[in-house]
Amino acid sequence: MSRGAALELFAPSGLPMVRKGDDLTALIGDALAEYAPRDGDVVVVAQKIVSKAEGRTVEIASVTPSERARVLAAEIGKDPRLVEIVLSESARVVRSRPNLLIVEHRLGFVMANAGVDQSNVAPQDGVARALLLPLDPDASAEALRAGLSARFGVKLAVIINDSFGRAWRRGTAGVAIGAAGLPSLIDLRGSPDLFGRALEVSIMGFADEIAAAASLLMGQADEARPVVLARGLTWAAPDAPAAALVRPQAEDLFR
Amino acid sequence: MSRGAALELFAPSGLPMVRKGDDLTALIGDALAEYAPRDGDVVVVAQKIVSKAEGRTVEIASVTPSERARVLAAEIGKDPRLVEIVLSESARVVRSRPNLLIVEHRLGFVMANAGVDQSNVAPQDGVARALLLPLDPDASAEALRAGLSARFGVKLAVIINDSFGRAWRRGTAGVAIGAAGLPSLIDLRGSPDLFGRALEVSIMGFADEIAAAASLLMGQADEARPVVLARGLTWAAPDAPAAALVRPQAEDLFR
Repeated sequence: MSRGAALELFAPSGLPMVRKGDDLTALIGDALAEYAPRDGDVVVVAQKIVSKAEGRTVEIASVTPSERARVLAAEIGKDPRLVEIVLSESARVVRSRPNLLIVEHRLGFVMANAGVDQSNVAPQDGVARALLLPLDPDASAEALRAGLSARFGVKLAVIINDSFGRAWRRGTAGVAIGAAGLPSLIDLRGSPDLFGRALEVSIMGFADEIAAAASLLMGQADEARPVVLARGLTWAAPDAPAAALVRPQAEDLFR
Repeated sequence: MSRGAALELFAPSGLPMVRKGDDLTALIGDALAEYAPRDGDVVVVAQKIVSKAEGRTVEIASVTPSERARVLAAEIGKDPRLVEIVLSESARVVRSRPNLLIVEHRLGFVMANAGVDQSNVAPQDGVARALLLPLDPDASAEALRAGLSARFGVKLAVIINDSFGRAWRRGTAGVAIGAAGLPSLIDLRGSPDLFGRALEVSIMGFADEIAAAASLLMGQADEARPVVLARGLTWAAPDAPAAALVRPQAEDLFR
């Protein structure tokens, strides 16, 4: 802990627009080759390109809203078909207000609109589509981790990130919705501090902090630079997926 | 947005233990000199060393708990003197449970224990002390920004960071409690996405994401590397302090 440390993040250019069925491991690998990935590098991938490659789109015109979606849509002033899509991705509604639905996503994430996104979805054929989160982002991260590690012959970690709003604070911050090959949480309980006492703030949201760092480089229209390589991180804790970052409802004071 | 991008973070070694009255601008400047700070570099400073330099400590033995603190302390199983210190830093209690108080700090931050910390406080004289947040972290950041910019003859930005727990997610993440010389929030409303539509997720917690990135390097016993220099960030929005990150209670759905 006494020496200086450095962390580098690189966001390659040249990644093409991603479409359903694309081999994301190959596309990301091609983009990262110039950085010669090394053991311990962490590859952060924007949720949108994972969802697109996996074909997680819904044609908005194809959706028939339920009665519940129509009532809620009228309350908050949104398209009932979009509300139907959000509800279909959610375990329950946590809060609603005009133009905003905060839900518990089926994966446990408490987030706006279940992550359903209309921006940056290619109107390639004039059909309006909404983009959903990947079906199982931890599994998607693991597949990318295995594929990219094999391609470069090194041990890589992968995070799939998204930008979430927060309670109490304005603005979004990058968080990990999928992770493989690293500990999403690092439990410091019992680690002595500089004077030998136990640390009070005790569990670090490691993958979320990496996701936030990468978000800084991904840019504002975040498909422009949807992949970031982070180099210089070290950890000793065992791997844990991003699902470990979801606070179980029983220990959550704010749902 | 089409070229690759890079972000570097450096955490110097060699910063001495900080004590009340120390010239923090000089200490941080000495530690950063090896990196030859440039225009646009962001210096992230751990809250603890700012609080220590400002002498924001309370001798625990000197505190007489109020009746309210004694009742609350009995409910949650904490030292009533520590509860008194937390309450004295707080506008109100948001939630409480055994061993945990989530409060609205007098600066508006919703956080555990009002940021009052017993870890890593030097028992230099055998007297137990608690460490409070800086009195005005945005002003502290501005003083550091002005002093460090003058020393190096470049335009720097400064963030004071801390690790906060979050609603809904396990683990802490670095956030900005003070900022100067950069926009704490970047409002993307109206910025077109890749297909010319307005972005839906619209305000980016820029200073919080930088704070989280720096936290990755600060290490677990975070006084070991309490200063991080971030290089490679760019922004066009006007400066806004970290106070802008506090969601006003009237627009907060979770207080």
